[in-house]
Formats: sequence, C-alpha cells, structure tokens
Amino acid sequence: MPILNKDMTLCISLSARPSNNGTRFHNHLYEQLGLNWIYKAFAPTDLAQAIAGVRGLGIRGCAVSMPYKEDVIALVDVMDPSAKAIDSVNTIVNDGGTLTAYNTDYTAIEQLLQRNAVPASYSVLLKGAGGMAKATAAALRDAGFRNVTVIARNEEAGRALAGLYGFAWRADVDPSAAGRADMIINVTPVGMAGGPDADSLSFPPSAIDAATVVFDVVALPAETPLIKAARAAGKTVITGAEVATIQALEQFVLYTGIRPGDEQVRAAEDFMRAQ
Amino acid sequence: MPILNKDMTLCISLSARPSNNGTRFHNHLYEQLGLNWIYKAFAPTDLAQAIAGVRGLGIRGCAVSMPYKEDVIALVDVMDPSAKAIDSVNTIVNDGGTLTAYNTDYTAIEQLLQRNAVPASYSVLLKGAGGMAKATAAALRDAGFRNVTVIARNEEAGRALAGLYGFAWRADVDPSAAGRADMIINVTPVGMAGGPDADSLSFPPSAIDAATVVFDVVALPAETPLIKAARAAGKTVITGAEVATIQALEQFVLYTGIRPGDEQVRAAEDFMRAQ
Repeated sequence: MPILNKDMTLCISLSARPSNNGTRFHNHLYEQLGLNWIYKAFAPTDLAQAIAGVRGLGIRGCAVSMPYKEDVIALVDVMDPSAKAIDSVNTIVNDGGTLTAYNTDYTAIEQLLQRNAVPASYSVLLKGAGGMAKATAAALRDAGFRNVTVIARNEEAGRALAGLYGFAWRADVDPSAAGRADMIINVTPVGMAGGPDADSLSFPPSAIDAATVVFDVVALPAETPLIKAARAAGKTVITGAEVATIQALEQFVLYTGIRPGDEQVRAAEDFMRAQ
Repeated sequence: MPILNKDMTLCISLSARPSNNGTRFHNHLYEQLGLNWIYKAFAPTDLAQAIAGVRGLGIRGCAVSMPYKEDVIALVDVMDPSAKAIDSVNTIVNDGGTLTAYNTDYTAIEQLLQRNAVPASYSVLLKGAGGMAKATAAALRDAGFRNVTVIARNEEAGRALAGLYGFAWRADVDPSAAGRADMIINVTPVGMAGGPDADSLSFPPSAIDAATVVFDVVALPAETPLIKAARAAGKTVITGAEVATIQALEQFVLYTGIRPGDEQVRAAEDFMRAQ
C-alpha cells in the first residue's frame, strides 16, 4: 500500500455486516493502477448521517449493501436507470455533492447475459423473490426475455415479483415437461457456504438436464452444487462469482472513470479471495 | 502500512487547508503499535454534514483545525474543560455516538509550562490575540499566572483577550524596563516559514535579554529567529514544535487510550517531518 496521505480520495461501503471483499478488491486495483485512492468498509450507525458524511467529507463513492439498498433511495439526488428499474441501490457516486445512485448488480447480470449470448427467446426458470431476484428479473425483461417463470415458495412475494415484469409464477419447479426451461437461474441461498442448504441442489436434476444455460447467483462458493452438476453435464454455466466481480468492477469504473485490464481485475480478485 | 481491511478504526481531521502532518504522525504510531487503525485528513465541503458523518460512520476521532474550531461547538454533545476554557475545539472523541470536544493545544501549553517548571510568579509578555493566544492565555491563567501582559497591535482584540483573563494589554513591547518580563511568548506568525516575517524577531533583543524563558508557538520552523536568539543567549526555550507534538500525542491518547513511549513518538515525529 502507498503511504497514507491527506490527498487520497476515499471510497467506502455501507453494510450492516461488511465483508472484506470490497476493501481488498478496490484497494488492490488502486495500488496496481497507482491511484492515490483508498477504500474502506463501514457498518454505519445511522444511514442518513452516513450519507451526510459522504457529502460533507467529499467521499467519492459508496457501495450500499443489506439492509440499506432501498432506504438509501430517499437520500440521493439522482436515480440512474439501473437503480430505478428495480428500486434498489448498490452504488452511489458523488459528483461535487450531487449523489447519483446506480445498481451494478443489474448491470452485471445484463452484461453476463450478453457475454454468454443467451437468446432472449429462451424459456427461463428464475428461482427466488428477493432483491437480487428483482435485479435479475428486470435485467431479463429489459433484455427482451418474455418466457420467464418465477419460482418462489412464498406466493405473495413470488406473484408480486412476477407481476412487476409480466412473468409467470409457480411455487415449485414442475417435475413434468412444463417445468423445463432453456435457462435456469438460482437466486436463493441454496448452495451458499455456511447456510443450511449448502450441500443442496437448487434445481432438480431433470431441470438441469433440460437446460442449456445454468446460472447461479450464489457467489460463495463459486462452485455450488448446482454449478458443479451443470459443469458435469456440459452445460454453459454463469456463476455468482462472475456477478460479484463484474458488479464490483463496474463500481470501480463509476468511481474512478478507469476500466482496468482483465489481468488487473484477475489479480485484484485473487487478492480479494486470499484472505 | 498494514493491508487495509473493513475492521480498521478510522480517525480523521477537518481543515480548510489540511497538511499531511496528522496523517503521517498518527498512521506511523498505529503501525508501530500494531493497531488496526487508519487516519486521513479531510477538507470538508460542509462542516455539519462532516460531523454527521463522524457519528453515522462511527469515526472514532476527529481533529478540528482552521476555520472550524468555533463553529463545531454547536455540533458536539459535551465540552471538556480544555475546550470550554477557550471556547475552541481542536479534538472530538466519539464514544458510541456521543461527541466530546477537547482542546489539546491548551493541554500542550499547560504541560509545557509544568515540564519546564515555569514559576507562576513569573511576569509574562504574551504577543498575539488569535485562537492560539487564547489557548495560551487560558493555560497561563489556569496555572496561576497573574502578571501577564497581552501584546497586540489590534487594540480591540488585544483588550478583549486580556480582559477575559484579567491580564493587561499593550499595543507594543515597551522598550523601557516595564517592557521586560521573566517569560516572553510569541503567538503571532512572526518567524513562520513562508510568511512575510519569516526572518524577523518577534521580540526586541532587550526583551530576550531580560527573559529567563523564551516560548515560541510557531512550529515551522522549530528554530525561529526568536528561538535561535534565545538559545544563543542561553535561555530556557520552549518551541512550537513541542506544542505541535504534544497536542497531536494527546489526541492520539484520547482516541486510542494508549500512551506511546518517547521513542515511538520521536519516530512518528521523524516520519511526519520526512515529507
């Protein structure tokens, strides 16, 4: 790290339970690129006062995580379409006191659908009804996907999410032919390290077999049971680790105006994971 | 520096024109003591919002410099006697959202009078009428000094300061015997590097000759023309560099609860100056 000095530009994150990922990823890129910048995660005691601090201290960028992604909307000046599409903010950029809110989760999913050239004509099963499922549903809708079924045990949440984007809803994956789709996407905690369902498959094997693309938004581990099964079956896979890296990279680009090279991003990712 | 991480405790400074001194001094002590702390100077765009940020982000400590030392009084919760004595704040400590304001300039002057065993019976010429002159006057009064003359060209400011502490006022040093004193203290910018009077003596040679203790609050350079002349004449000298170090050290102690050893303080000072 460079010697700390008064002229460093500060970026921060606000989360009730911060991880070290952002702090390590961003600081490593600053170092590689020779930027006199610094990044640190915070667990704020009061969201409105923390955002006042972003303005008053001239903090350049601010990542926003659980549980502040919606409450922060009232505290910013401008909502970028990426945040407006899902009424959820994960990034704030401070331009001389004007705070613009973005959602780079939405951007990351949009990019991954493009990079993997997933046809909008594909049928999709989207499992989950939380904030990240909303980002995924909005990115699918905006990319032209129409044949999407939201899978959620919670009927109210599932129907609400499906209704927002003109999609169908089912409580569970239909084991019959009707339950198969060209792309299956898990946006639930199933398969997440340390969770109660860490070893479980988020979709039944029949749905994996029928799919061409398997997408798991769980980032830790990157190789969830779903991703492992999909790789074994030779499917195109998109991992949550890819989402996490792209969303962090897009934050970096929004803050600094610089797009690091692939090698630099890989080195920052490696450093982030080597904790 | 340690690898930056989410758990670091942040301390900051607020100043319209920050220097690197605090950032270098505090971070070097954190490193020497193995503390997972970080320090950075800020030039706030809005004082009230910056102080809101101190609360909302859980920033542990905040140094306050020109021009915020008085305006910040309305924004804190508790005034320590060191700040209350002079209605001026240079340090804020955040204990779980309660902000207590201190003035470690006052504390530093108090300590230096004690360390040098300056008798309270000494007559004193105190030259200057700004914020630091107020801290010095209050420390003198509280240490029992009664025979003090404030020297200030600006009659209104000089009389006001002298009146606050029951001292006398004169526009200029009296060249006669009446203008001599046991201790002379410069709290004007005369002798300050880069200023218009960098090469000037802040007191006439006759006043230096008559004094036993010569105290210059100018910190840069430590060896002002006044201090040089006093050393040459074999006087007891107290320098502004000593004030600066002690006030910064007392901030460190207030923030961390740890009093570093003399060697550690010297190393941090050396690092601070090696810019």
